[in-house]
Amino acid sequence: MDIVISSRVRLARNFKKYPFSNRLSSEKAYTMIQESRDAILESPTIMAQEFEYIDLEQKSSLDKLVMMEKHLISPELVKKTTPTGVLLKQDESISIMINEEDHLRIQGIQLGSDIHKTWDITSRIDDLLEESIEYAFHDKYGYLTACPTNLGTGLRASYMLHVPALETTGQLKMILQAIGKFGITIRGMYGEGTEAQGSLFQISNQITLGQSEQEIIENLNTVTNQIVEQEKNIREKLLQANKLKFEDRIYRSYGILTHARQLSSKEAMSLLSDIKVGFELGILKTDKKPVNIYELMVCTQPANLQKQIGRALSPDERDEERASFLRQHL
Amino acid sequence: MDIVISSRVRLARNFKKYPFSNRLSSEKAYTMIQESRDAILESPTIMAQEFEYIDLEQKSSLDKLVMMEKHLISPELVKKTTPTGVLLKQDESISIMINEEDHLRIQGIQLGSDIHKTWDITSRIDDLLEESIEYAFHDKYGYLTACPTNLGTGLRASYMLHVPALETTGQLKMILQAIGKFGITIRGMYGEGTEAQGSLFQISNQITLGQSEQEIIENLNTVTNQIVEQEKNIREKLLQANKLKFEDRIYRSYGILTHARQLSSKEAMSLLSDIKVGFELGILKTDKKPVNIYELMVCTQPANLQKQIGRALSPDERDEERASFLRQHL
Repeated sequence: MDIVISSRVRLARNFKKYPFSNRLSSEKAYTMIQESRDAILESPTIMAQEFEYIDLEQKSSLDKLVMMEKHLISPELVKKTTPTGVLLKQDESISIMINEEDHLRIQGIQLGSDIHKTWDITSRIDDLLEESIEYAFHDKYGYLTACPTNLGTGLRASYMLHVPALETTGQLKMILQAIGKFGITIRGMYGEGTEAQGSLFQISNQITLGQSEQEIIENLNTVTNQIVEQEKNIREKLLQANKLKFEDRIYRSYGILTHARQLSSKEAMSLLSDIKVGFELGILKTDKKPVNIYELMVCTQPANLQKQIGRALSPDERDEERASFLRQHL
Repeated sequence: MDIVISSRVRLARNFKKYPFSNRLSSEKAYTMIQESRDAILESPTIMAQEFEYIDLEQKSSLDKLVMMEKHLISPELVKKTTPTGVLLKQDESISIMINEEDHLRIQGIQLGSDIHKTWDITSRIDDLLEESIEYAFHDKYGYLTACPTNLGTGLRASYMLHVPALETTGQLKMILQAIGKFGITIRGMYGEGTEAQGSLFQISNQITLGQSEQEIIENLNTVTNQIVEQEKNIREKLLQANKLKFEDRIYRSYGILTHARQLSSKEAMSLLSDIKVGFELGILKTDKKPVNIYELMVCTQPANLQKQIGRALSPDERDEERASFLRQHL
């Protein structure tokens, strides 16, 4: 079962020689950005060819939202009006946000649950940057960050989880309370303060200080494995308790997705979540080749949908195009 | 557009020599029933071969409900515990209920809007019965009936109408008030005191005294034609006002009907009503051969469904079998 959708590692880093981003002048910000670009693009490594720099000041809101929906940049970076940019690896597995809350936010993202691999590739970029940049680092406190919640390792390790059974039975709320004491939290689809849609949640460490990077990741893994097991168990129990009702819900969702002429983003996410479970439990079978439901979830987000259609769409037009897109792909 | 589903004519008649049914002893009821049977089955006409007698005392509740759902007998007749029977024409176009509220209720029913034809075939049976039965008849008041609301012609002429647009826009209620003064009323699917499902309504005359049979029928026709025109107009307006929303509703209903694993009778009727409109307006197109939606509505009523499956079903089982039946036929 595809309960763990993706693995993410994010490192917060700052230049020693510059004030934090919220106190950085535009002039110095541009210099800092240039130095960051050079650290990758002028490096004597293969990375120099694999990355491109995107000047976010030159990008439309739509383009920035497309990147946000793909989790390549944060909602905060979309909103910023100061000089910002992103160094993006061609395969979109690494993005380095520049001048977000911290000077650098190095993010590695991979589909699936192999967070060790994600950590490795992110860590390698961190090392490369450190060859030319002197980070703000304190012997006792570790990496210094704009917000004290990131102090120490500057690491946020997270998984995107698809947990509809835990959500609908209300058990996710109980889990949320229980995992707090392990320094782990669960948030919405795009992180802090964002809503969960399609039963997608981010689980991540809250504590960055007093634990090593390996401890943080192992701790997250332990808790996540338990949650994944619980999600599987509850799915099984729901299915056994009333198989027909379970099947009915999944098939209705499939029937609506393949026939509706208007679908809001929220409804589409919820219906796609249902059929994702249906495919995973072998309830839903279609003649067509299997589709990646998570990909459809991303593609039908407002900005990505408009990007594909190639023009700005009103909310009503989006609902129509979303329904049309999903009919074609299911 | 198939707004007029069927045409019905019902004549209330009583033997002169017997008290009305509610005061008729069992012995006399059996004699009255035998005389009614003989009037048809022993007549020197082709009718003798075309009718069969069904002793309702010998029939299970399920069998009686099956006939009721097909409008061959009334809900009142199903409930009666005194001796009752029905003379049924093989093609089910004529049924003569015996010992209902009146001794005889002669009913002709035809798909479509040709009420004159329905009147002709019903009237011919009335004439045949009168050859051997002396009806209770008063020179001034006409045919005498158990309830004074049927006095005079003893005629109820009615159409079954499918008017979803009038119902959803609330205009049916206004029409109901307006037509009262013409002696016309609109009631639920199985007549007085029954609920409307799938936007199916019966329109019929309330007045039986002081108008000739032809006047009653012409009056009903005039009002019905206006209602049909209004239904067409509102459908057109709803479609023009928001085509996409209209199409969305119809396609969602079709998607649910072809995918759900559990469907209540009420939900099935409502969804079938939607797709009936969809087919009629040319919105809904499928590769399969056209289906008679009204037939599906009758077949998926609780008793008819159990009859087809061949055994009594719990409500949950019915919902499952109904969904299965509709998936097969759509």
